[in-house]
Amino acid sequence: MHAPGHLQHSPTSRLRTLVAATGEDGPVATSAEDLRARRQTADKNCDRWFSHAWVPAPERLRRLAESATEEQSDSYGHGGDIEALEREVAELLGKPAAVFMPSGIMAQQSVLRVYADRAGTKRVAVHGQSHLLVHELNTLEEVHQLRIERLTSDSRQPRPDELAAIPGNLAAVTLELPLREPGFLLPTWDELVVFAQACADRGVPLHLDGARLWESTPYLKHSLAEISALATSVYLSFYKGLGGLAGAVLAGPEDVIAESRRWQRRLGGNLFTMLPYAVAAREGLRTALPLMGDLHQRAVEVAMALQNEGYRVVPDPPHTNSFQVHAPRDAEAMDTAAVDRMERTRESICWSWRPSAVPGWSWTELVITPHSLQWPVSEIAKAYGELLRT
Amino acid sequence: MHAPGHLQHSPTSRLRTLVAATGEDGPVATSAEDLRARRQTADKNCDRWFSHAWVPAPERLRRLAESATEEQSDSYGHGGDIEALEREVAELLGKPAAVFMPSGIMAQQSVLRVYADRAGTKRVAVHGQSHLLVHELNTLEEVHQLRIERLTSDSRQPRPDELAAIPGNLAAVTLELPLREPGFLLPTWDELVVFAQACADRGVPLHLDGARLWESTPYLKHSLAEISALATSVYLSFYKGLGGLAGAVLAGPEDVIAESRRWQRRLGGNLFTMLPYAVAAREGLRTALPLMGDLHQRAVEVAMALQNEGYRVVPDPPHTNSFQVHAPRDAEAMDTAAVDRMERTRESICWSWRPSAVPGWSWTELVITPHSLQWPVSEIAKAYGELLRT
Repeated sequence: MHAPGHLQHSPTSRLRTLVAATGEDGPVATSAEDLRARRQTADKNCDRWFSHAWVPAPERLRRLAESATEEQSDSYGHGGDIEALEREVAELLGKPAAVFMPSGIMAQQSVLRVYADRAGTKRVAVHGQSHLLVHELNTLEEVHQLRIERLTSDSRQPRPDELAAIPGNLAAVTLELPLREPGFLLPTWDELVVFAQACADRGVPLHLDGARLWESTPYLKHSLAEISALATSVYLSFYKGLGGLAGAVLAGPEDVIAESRRWQRRLGGNLFTMLPYAVAAREGLRTALPLMGDLHQRAVEVAMALQNEGYRVVPDPPHTNSFQVHAPRDAEAMDTAAVDRMERTRESICWSWRPSAVPGWSWTELVITPHSLQWPVSEIAKAYGELLRT
Repeated sequence: MHAPGHLQHSPTSRLRTLVAATGEDGPVATSAEDLRARRQTADKNCDRWFSHAWVPAPERLRRLAESATEEQSDSYGHGGDIEALEREVAELLGKPAAVFMPSGIMAQQSVLRVYADRAGTKRVAVHGQSHLLVHELNTLEEVHQLRIERLTSDSRQPRPDELAAIPGNLAAVTLELPLREPGFLLPTWDELVVFAQACADRGVPLHLDGARLWESTPYLKHSLAEISALATSVYLSFYKGLGGLAGAVLAGPEDVIAESRRWQRRLGGNLFTMLPYAVAAREGLRTALPLMGDLHQRAVEVAMALQNEGYRVVPDPPHTNSFQVHAPRDAEAMDTAAVDRMERTRESICWSWRPSAVPGWSWTELVITPHSLQWPVSEIAKAYGELLRT
């Protein structure tokens, strides 16, 4: 089971030793590493997954081959599925141009560098909990010498008055939709319109980190094109809600995208062929994108049912297909209960649990995927209930 | 048919109009773009290729699925085929550590940045015709503010006296083995040893751009590990001689590789999964690597046979499986003859021809691949002879 975007869960962070009761011989020291190994094995042996199904690598590649339609492979991003994908996404987003990038980290630094070079200032306005600042090893500063102005670091979307409070010239303003760290939070549509207008009034390009923008349309009740129209450029990921292998798209004005392609080349992202990523992304557009309304609806239902079992969810109700689940039990106990249950039932219902700020509590992220739709809400709620009581 | 590494041949560079005789109606203006389209169609319709076979995308992915062995996919480069590949290559090269990177451009700037940060100087010594300077949009300067010291720009490998002529502190010295631009040129083993010793005496890390190092062992008459032992770090490509999809490996000391991984992350090259690239690279190690001696031997034989047909080759004899072929006929005539022949025979024997510095001459690169071994030398020579005489 993969946890998309969870790079912060490095194996070493799980290396701390924990103590677990292991039967009549009394408590025995087990390492979290052992539990992790048990989880990996158990996950492979499952025959049912709530979020991300484990698929053997050869089978993943076979499915990829079956979903390929174009005859031609791209050559350094020219032609084939890559060009077709870029056209499809540009149209979906209502943007003049789009470019496939191997990763969102590359896509976003490329476009922000373009804005900085044009504006003659290195200052960009970013949320303090954004992926750009939390998970990218300070690449904006280290690689491009950008200077970060934090709109806010609070667990909510930034407000226009916070933008107004940053004086001077800005190269760009970014919004992460949804803001993943504090629970995949979205603004309301009206808040988004007002914020975008504030950027426009100031004459600063607004760039959307829309890694999970596909998943945001049901809550915002507007189309991808309507949301994208509020910004100069937008990045979306192909391997989260769309279930692709990796990669991202950056869309915006022709000249901005053309210049971003030069940064893609410089950063080492203009690969000899990106065929597998393009094929997987197009498959996601065909099969996963039409389900976004259902996934959000199911997320709301599951969240409510989990609260009835004793959990707390953030946000309540969820804004997207993903939300935080907070358990009134410590992480070690939750992890042990989860792995025990997985070994017993061959069902995978959650990934690992993290200690909460509140002693005795723990939390995890729950992602509703097309797999999840095959689980009746009452059944997944009952399964989660068992984790609290075993 | 793909021309690995030929990014400089952009479609637009072929847009110039050329005049070709087209029968009794006299000369008619045809665009090079038309010829290029004819070539692409003809290439697909071929049933025999001398260098790179055209394979429909779905078939490429099917073959990939068939060559997958590991069950686990990597997650952000951890586990699966990526880890197995890194272990295999580190062992082959006799280096303590290796990291898979999506591209050579990323691999090389990462390690050079590591050396620069450590040395406290941004100065790196590079050949003026190296890929680093010719094909990467000045990424070393633009992204990392490195300062380039040219060892030489002559069409040969650099000499120790040229390194000695650069005063002051250097962060690193690089050698491109083989040097592709002037004809895939190698130093002799003894020259390489002396140059490496000069770097060691000066206390400067030597980094090898060994994109085609796999292809260099027969001429150097030493193993990959023996060659790599002369340098601190080495990069090799997976999609040239090995025939992979894309990607590269960087090998060297544990600490240098660990620090390079951080730059990979920053540059946007730490992808959610790199499964397809890893599988293709491992297949290349199994099937193409053992053929390197045969490919070089065949290159020497084919080069000699082409000279007998009226061509000139550079270098003579070839140092690797690849070399330049110079024709005593202009590029337009050669391209037309080549496409005509491809349409008539359904055999693909060369890619496009470029104007030479000598009026009336043109040139192309010829790469000997496992496909080429199925062509008797006399047959490919006869085919090339026809291009000069039709």
